[in-house]
Amino acid sequence: MAKNLAQKLIESHLVSGSLEPGSPIELKIDQTLTQDATGTMVMLEFEALGLPRIKTEVSAQYVDHNLLQTDFKNADDHLFLQSACRKFGLWFSRPGNGVSHPVHMSCFGIPGKTLLGSDSHTCAAGSMGMLAIGAGGLQVAMAMAGVPFALKMPRVLGVTLEGELPPWVSAKDIILEMLRRQTVKGCVNKIVEYRGPGLEKLTAMDRHVIANMGQEMGATASVFPADDAVKSFLRQQQREEDYVELKADAGAGYDEEDTIDLSALEPLIACPSSPDRVVPVREVAGRPIYQSYVGSSANPGLRDFAIPARIVSGRRVHDSVSFDINPTSRQLLEEISRSGDLAALLQAGARLHQTGCGGCIGMGQAPASDRISLRTVPRNFPGRSGTAEDQVYLCSPEVATASALTGKITDPRELDMDYPVFREPQQLPDMRPLLQPPQGALPEGAIAVEVELVKGPNIQPLPDFEKLPEVLTGPLLLKAGDNVSTDEILPAGAEILPLRSNIPAISRHTFSRIDEDFYQRAMDLSGDCFVVGGDNYGQGSSREHAAISPRYLGVRCVIAKSMARIHRRNLINFGVLPLLFDDPNDYDRLEQNAVLEIDAPLLQLATGKPVTLKIMPQGEMVKLRHDLSGDEMKTLKAGGLINEAREKHLTKGGG
Amino acid sequence: MAKNLAQKLIESHLVSGSLEPGSPIELKIDQTLTQDATGTMVMLEFEALGLPRIKTEVSAQYVDHNLLQTDFKNADDHLFLQSACRKFGLWFSRPGNGVSHPVHMSCFGIPGKTLLGSDSHTCAAGSMGMLAIGAGGLQVAMAMAGVPFALKMPRVLGVTLEGELPPWVSAKDIILEMLRRQTVKGCVNKIVEYRGPGLEKLTAMDRHVIANMGQEMGATASVFPADDAVKSFLRQQQREEDYVELKADAGAGYDEEDTIDLSALEPLIACPSSPDRVVPVREVAGRPIYQSYVGSSANPGLRDFAIPARIVSGRRVHDSVSFDINPTSRQLLEEISRSGDLAALLQAGARLHQTGCGGCIGMGQAPASDRISLRTVPRNFPGRSGTAEDQVYLCSPEVATASALTGKITDPRELDMDYPVFREPQQLPDMRPLLQPPQGALPEGAIAVEVELVKGPNIQPLPDFEKLPEVLTGPLLLKAGDNVSTDEILPAGAEILPLRSNIPAISRHTFSRIDEDFYQRAMDLSGDCFVVGGDNYGQGSSREHAAISPRYLGVRCVIAKSMARIHRRNLINFGVLPLLFDDPNDYDRLEQNAVLEIDAPLLQLATGKPVTLKIMPQGEMVKLRHDLSGDEMKTLKAGGLINEAREKHLTKGGG
Repeated sequence: MAKNLAQKLIESHLVSGSLEPGSPIELKIDQTLTQDATGTMVMLEFEALGLPRIKTEVSAQYVDHNLLQTDFKNADDHLFLQSACRKFGLWFSRPGNGVSHPVHMSCFGIPGKTLLGSDSHTCAAGSMGMLAIGAGGLQVAMAMAGVPFALKMPRVLGVTLEGELPPWVSAKDIILEMLRRQTVKGCVNKIVEYRGPGLEKLTAMDRHVIANMGQEMGATASVFPADDAVKSFLRQQQREEDYVELKADAGAGYDEEDTIDLSALEPLIACPSSPDRVVPVREVAGRPIYQSYVGSSANPGLRDFAIPARIVSGRRVHDSVSFDINPTSRQLLEEISRSGDLAALLQAGARLHQTGCGGCIGMGQAPASDRISLRTVPRNFPGRSGTAEDQVYLCSPEVATASALTGKITDPRELDMDYPVFREPQQLPDMRPLLQPPQGALPEGAIAVEVELVKGPNIQPLPDFEKLPEVLTGPLLLKAGDNVSTDEILPAGAEILPLRSNIPAISRHTFSRIDEDFYQRAMDLSGDCFVVGGDNYGQGSSREHAAISPRYLGVRCVIAKSMARIHRRNLINFGVLPLLFDDPNDYDRLEQNAVLEIDAPLLQLATGKPVTLKIMPQGEMVKLRHDLSGDEMKTLKAGGLINEAREKHLTKGGG
Repeated sequence: MAKNLAQKLIESHLVSGSLEPGSPIELKIDQTLTQDATGTMVMLEFEALGLPRIKTEVSAQYVDHNLLQTDFKNADDHLFLQSACRKFGLWFSRPGNGVSHPVHMSCFGIPGKTLLGSDSHTCAAGSMGMLAIGAGGLQVAMAMAGVPFALKMPRVLGVTLEGELPPWVSAKDIILEMLRRQTVKGCVNKIVEYRGPGLEKLTAMDRHVIANMGQEMGATASVFPADDAVKSFLRQQQREEDYVELKADAGAGYDEEDTIDLSALEPLIACPSSPDRVVPVREVAGRPIYQSYVGSSANPGLRDFAIPARIVSGRRVHDSVSFDINPTSRQLLEEISRSGDLAALLQAGARLHQTGCGGCIGMGQAPASDRISLRTVPRNFPGRSGTAEDQVYLCSPEVATASALTGKITDPRELDMDYPVFREPQQLPDMRPLLQPPQGALPEGAIAVEVELVKGPNIQPLPDFEKLPEVLTGPLLLKAGDNVSTDEILPAGAEILPLRSNIPAISRHTFSRIDEDFYQRAMDLSGDCFVVGGDNYGQGSSREHAAISPRYLGVRCVIAKSMARIHRRNLINFGVLPLLFDDPNDYDRLEQNAVLEIDAPLLQLATGKPVTLKIMPQGEMVKLRHDLSGDEMKTLKAGGLINEAREKHLTKGGG
């Protein structure tokens, strides 16, 4: 039977299961990617697993998030990660090399491979025919240990791109159009596969823009075929030998289908504070701006910097605008330096920042109070910029740049100039020599190399967590609304990110953005408790700290109308029960501070019966359900994945 | 009578007084410089003075310190400063333009002019024949208002430079040699005037390196002649018309003299944690390093980046080293981008940071725990890097770069290569068009332009301070040691710098680096108190917050063995009595928490009698002295300069 590309990629890595949507499958993972904000925990977890070396084909650790070293913590983390790479056999990409996703694509991307990453935007590598999935850190650690990745077979949404983009409209507008149609939860448990004649003029990096923000629709992955555009990209990266052609079979079907006529698109913009609040730029044009921000994994290509440079060349950025340029990678910065594009940006008044994730994760570049910030980044969740009650809009580099010149939100078609010409260079500097290679794979069974892990005083071991009790009772400590992101469960930003290696310390900030008393209430309670959420609970970043910290504070069960994929799995990994309302209207029956109880939940789960929640003291019943696989139930019974791995280890009599 | 250059510069600006060392003088100020970390307070002070427009020839406000925007505060400050520049008639240099001192030199430096700046390294402009002096913010605000700057006529130290620097030895080694000889307090109340045949091969930017760190010896100013080197510099900046030749008269004498044979110098390094702990690099070679840092106002020249680029070209930075490049200015970054030097640095593995002061003032780039950081910056006071118990060494770009390649402290003469060749470009991009000009001077007596000051929620007015009581009684709340810097009185760094516009908030950090309970003791006391210091109390940065915050917490009198010039004056400006031990040995008689009393201090001061301090309850006597001028006494009696200005204003009946 003819298969689509997503099915082909899954089938070629299938360890167990079938291609029937919704059925449990396990996939062999070829490559992993970790960044520093999640990577320190991954390395601590891998250390806890007790294995000498990783078992993937390629695992790479990037330092791109915690680059603002305001004290010893981030620098200590970088040294720890470097030592862990040496000890366990990973590639190490030092601070200054750039953002993980485009750098990984440049150095290690190979069509047809699977990639699991402890960053939600890992999906960007789908741009070159990989099956690339973001996951919680512990699952990446398991993948590094050779354990297959379990999920439910997603549905495949085939999106046909037709026509050609008009001038001043670019890849970002395609994914913004997708977000407008799908909203932030429209692609949960789906793979989005792009196809059709509109692909021809989209480079691999254009596709990266689209694949990257698939995460913003809740998609498990986004896939593009490996075609001439991918071949050109690999040639440019001096790796043409890694090219493999990969396409859907002729006549393959899809679970769902959609079509976008590229020629009909116009410049789009996502309004504060959700990536799906998309409108045409002209509808909000004229609003004065404080900041215009170019960069991040959502617009990482050379053209995303060259086009702005050529727009501002010979012009001057508006006096009121901070025009912030965040280069993606060392390679890109070197290239725009050579090409003269950097000089053009500087002459126009742009502000060049350190290569890396920067303001996209709130590591600096926070906007002023009550001012508008235009950004080419993937997310504008409330407060993610570092400024409370921020007004962040998401847009293309073209819109950001036009607005930087005028000082207000501007449709770039209104600029009195021709759309600049950009041609991709045939070849770029090879980045791989600047990554530090693993010390070499060890033969099977050999002991770990004698590298000592360098742990500064802020790097603390993962706390031990107990199993679920037979009867779970406790107050509903927080009732949250719809679309709560992991940024709201556990914020990022310059103050909190440096605590990622220290669970007791970072836990103080749990839910601080939506309920600043949560931590104190949890400390006062010092016992088991519940959290309730609305739709799409836990969207956004893959940070497992958004599961570990609530668990550390006593949260044993989260009940929601629906849940984002990565966060749901992170809860399971750390022994927190993820349950769903059988009737979403029952959400309204639960009030914060009510005492809740689940009788023998483990038994109920095991028998597959519906789960009944009691509201105490009257004992009113609320009907819940779960969507846990058998393996996930085992993990929950053990109190989390690390407990489970340890039990297996002990029963095998290992030392 | 033949005059030296320092005397000529002073004489040409003398409003009152004579050239007799130690006698009170007043100087006309032609230009002022403010940076953002001190500038917000300067603008609040200028606003409090109630004048419509500044009265200087040029006043320029730079944004170079608080560039890490982790929340709204720094961005709000930038907008406030921009609005104040428009309202009061200053030039505004936006974030990304670069470090105030070299940018001011490039845009506005004119031989023979006086420059007063609210940054201690303002003295760097002495490199081009200016009389450039660092001062507290309030005095800069007064200078902007046209008030002459008062000081005591300094002694002049003439330093003759002979011979020529050997390869691998550069300007930084000259000032490190000076520091080795003079220590951090050897030039208090002196102007250092450089002369002799050794000047010929030192460019204006080389001289900037030396003049800049004159502050580290406690000098009031450093001066160099305006000669062909300055003419070349101005030509390069497209401002040759501003050149004026200025030299000491033939046969001029000096209060003190010294000579350095440049040909006998070798690479030097200042060990932790004081700029005067200078030894030859070879004595500490081999110690492993974590960080190598190029940049800051202490090595701002094009050659300071080009030489490192040419050293690392085709080589690779050591895997263990973070090689941090901090470009000085937009102009410099553009130039190294054009020349290929930036590409060479990036290819070698360097990490490029945002243009500005960066890690030099603890705004990021803090080193890891227990690791060595080599820096080309002017200061290595304890903890200034952002990491407590840091190990920061100061050195030339040559030493920093050689060490980045080897991973350990390295004498660059040990590298197996020829000393790179660098030739200054004839012309550089004109930076002035990228500064925002004042809206134009107003005619005398015109009202302020209708620009509203933009004040975010963190920008709070300066608190009102009461006059000194007739009898000052209170506990000795802190007894500190020698060489306490303003970094220890009120730290900088990413957490505290954003509070510079908010005295109640920043005061919580007063003395936190040397005594973390100080704030709580002061709050518990909630009354008048004393602080005692040893030698050279208040060295370092010009931040007036190191006077305002103690005053806000109740400190009414500081007694020390000796005091740094700028801090002493800041204390007076905010009504804090600066007194000296008549016998330094009496320092040992005072114990922390003892209750002290000064009888009718104002009366005693007025009559010029020695000041007697009583240690209660026994009433033991300690003999103190003061060195206050009549005007300074008036300021103290009024409770500070703002009170005094307000009184004058009211007696004049102004509205």
